[in-house]
Amino acid sequence: MTKPNARVLKDVIRTIPDYPKPGIMFRDITTLLGDAWAFRRAVDELVQPYAGAKVDKVAGIEARGFILGGAVAHQLSAGFVPIRKKGKLPHETVRVSYLLEYGEDEMEMHADALVKGERVILVDDLIATGGTALGAVELLRRLGAEVVAACFVIDLPDLGGAEKLRAAGVDVRTLLAFEGH
Amino acid sequence: MTKPNARVLKDVIRTIPDYPKPGIMFRDITTLLGDAWAFRRAVDELVQPYAGAKVDKVAGIEARGFILGGAVAHQLSAGFVPIRKKGKLPHETVRVSYLLEYGEDEMEMHADALVKGERVILVDDLIATGGTALGAVELLRRLGAEVVAACFVIDLPDLGGAEKLRAAGVDVRTLLAFEGH
Repeated sequence: MTKPNARVLKDVIRTIPDYPKPGIMFRDITTLLGDAWAFRRAVDELVQPYAGAKVDKVAGIEARGFILGGAVAHQLSAGFVPIRKKGKLPHETVRVSYLLEYGEDEMEMHADALVKGERVILVDDLIATGGTALGAVELLRRLGAEVVAACFVIDLPDLGGAEKLRAAGVDVRTLLAFEGH
Repeated sequence: MTKPNARVLKDVIRTIPDYPKPGIMFRDITTLLGDAWAFRRAVDELVQPYAGAKVDKVAGIEARGFILGGAVAHQLSAGFVPIRKKGKLPHETVRVSYLLEYGEDEMEMHADALVKGERVILVDDLIATGGTALGAVELLRRLGAEVVAACFVIDLPDLGGAEKLRAAGVDVRTLLAFEGH
């Protein structure tokens, strides 16, 4: 699926070979974030389908999802909900274990971060195996959220995460894709 | 200094006593972030003085500074630069040690995150002793940035951070203040 400007946005992603371990081609989004045009373009493309829709909250996944999610929430006049690594949130939380590309971890959301029935968009920079995103969707649904969509700048389709999210009934939006992992 | 709406924004900050340790009144900004009106208002008040100014980059401090900083960068059509805890950035970095309210740590920025002479606004959720913010300013200046301002939603003036930043020649903007720490 080719989108307008996808080629140009893709060109500002920096690839770092063998990071964080040999064989991994790390897609570094900081070069996109730091480019005023590309950052604006990426945020605007992420929100465009939801500009007229009712969105109560945008949930961002720590840490890079905070940068994009904050901008998306502001643009949609929605509240922002942080999904954090365990032990970082000061109030009562709900917690989920999830599989990472490089291991396993737990993440949390405040138990009062949203009200049952609220419409939520999930945002992160990249979807790989989908473990983090699936865990986030589980947390959001456990609190009664309607997950309107999950939005990512980068898709690594060979790792199957977007497909898994769609199989879980989530509308997935990605702006550009890289082959391999 | 009282600002319009300061009382109302302040009312949506949750205070958690004795967190993360006895005697600390933790100011939890997640309740402000999650409130669509308050989040929008806070971001708009942070950017208002710089709306007509030339701002090349917005630097956000991990992790809560990413949420506000992403929204501020998008609103000002600037690039976003993450200042992260050590070991999180994949490319060549510059690093600084800094004093925290509860200890000491190191943070990093990509060495190519900005070009000499660029005008940068620093964003974080809260300024307490100012250790983190002073470290961030040092990193930005080491790369040749002109630090236009440092913006925070919450000021804890009794801890003196804003004063220290001003003494270092930084224009400081805060939206609301709590006494004590």
